[in-house]
Amino acid sequence: MVLLSDTRTNAGIDNIACYKKMFTFEEPGERVIVILTAGSLSVTQNVIARLQEDIDNPEVPPERNIMGTPSMLTVAELIGDKLANVSSEISNRLSRMNQSAGASMIVAGQRRGGVPRLFNIYPEGNFIEATPDTPFIQIGEHKYGKPLLDRVVTPKTSLDDGRKAVLLSMDSTLRSNLSVGMPLDLVMVRSDECKICHQSRIEADDPDFRAMSDGWSKALRDGFRAI
Amino acid sequence: MVLLSDTRTNAGIDNIACYKKMFTFEEPGERVIVILTAGSLSVTQNVIARLQEDIDNPEVPPERNIMGTPSMLTVAELIGDKLANVSSEISNRLSRMNQSAGASMIVAGQRRGGVPRLFNIYPEGNFIEATPDTPFIQIGEHKYGKPLLDRVVTPKTSLDDGRKAVLLSMDSTLRSNLSVGMPLDLVMVRSDECKICHQSRIEADDPDFRAMSDGWSKALRDGFRAI
Repeated sequence: MVLLSDTRTNAGIDNIACYKKMFTFEEPGERVIVILTAGSLSVTQNVIARLQEDIDNPEVPPERNIMGTPSMLTVAELIGDKLANVSSEISNRLSRMNQSAGASMIVAGQRRGGVPRLFNIYPEGNFIEATPDTPFIQIGEHKYGKPLLDRVVTPKTSLDDGRKAVLLSMDSTLRSNLSVGMPLDLVMVRSDECKICHQSRIEADDPDFRAMSDGWSKALRDGFRAI
Repeated sequence: MVLLSDTRTNAGIDNIACYKKMFTFEEPGERVIVILTAGSLSVTQNVIARLQEDIDNPEVPPERNIMGTPSMLTVAELIGDKLANVSSEISNRLSRMNQSAGASMIVAGQRRGGVPRLFNIYPEGNFIEATPDTPFIQIGEHKYGKPLLDRVVTPKTSLDDGRKAVLLSMDSTLRSNLSVGMPLDLVMVRSDECKICHQSRIEADDPDFRAMSDGWSKALRDGFRAI
């Protein structure tokens, strides 16, 4: 599995900040969970904090925290519950001011003995899972980068090609929309290792990303000319 | 100028129909106006009907109809006024059912002695104009097709390359979003001719469009592999 997130957060156009939207939970060889977030930061930070609190609190039974519960399905359920609860608490406050706050999450992971699973958790807490028919999930500002993923990502796509695909998809979005911004966070997880095999932060001046982005622009322009 | 629109209209996902979203008004050599619409069909049909009514009604003074008024700026203003009026009438009705209806329009044209102008008319009736910095305008489901336009369209782009660009941009959207559908309507207008130089409807089985679309998919996949 290849996971990529940007770091741009904005409250209106004149309040732009950089926040990590990727959170990893790992017991190498036993269990790996990666959560990506989109939407209201006040919701997503709170959800992640509560998940961490439950992991750290010995009074919470294992089946009620994401590092203890036996299956990835229950992990998704626990995260969905937290997300729905926090969303509804915050929305209750905001509704008095005719405002609302929502968030969605991607949850990817595997526990030893299970299979790798990839979930899209909706603001209401329900979720769907990636399948061979639809092997990728996007949340947030997803439309600009979707045509590329639609064309190249299949269940047979290698980890390296997956990495290239998510980076080029994000590059299209970065170029066309200001609400998405560098740096990027990248994580890769190999099947059955139950640990992160690669984790990096890609800064705006990263020469490899720049070269890939320029190469893609050139490929698009050349392809356009050739038709 | 190159104008392209799809024909998919939907009221919910189980009520899908085909309606033209491009309307041309022409007095060859004197004046050409092309209007593209997006949004609520009940609004856009009504606006087009009222514009036509004003053209046909001899009691409406020339400066109050789009084929008589002296400048393209006034054409945009007249269309903006009609759009705002119809939107607000229909929205007043719908607000009783907690619903709303909006629409936006692209207006392109030239009158003899003037320059070619391209406007984006907002649902409220105000508008902006394309400039050398931003030489293209999209309305409706625009995000999927924007990365290509961002990369290849400049004020120097030829009419033929413009045609290729809008078709490939629409192709990306067609592949990624069901709310956009064939057939497509294409119109091209050369500077200072004040008439339509090409008009065609591109059906789903059009061999040229199919070849272009396949060529673009291949170019994208080859470019992706080469990086």
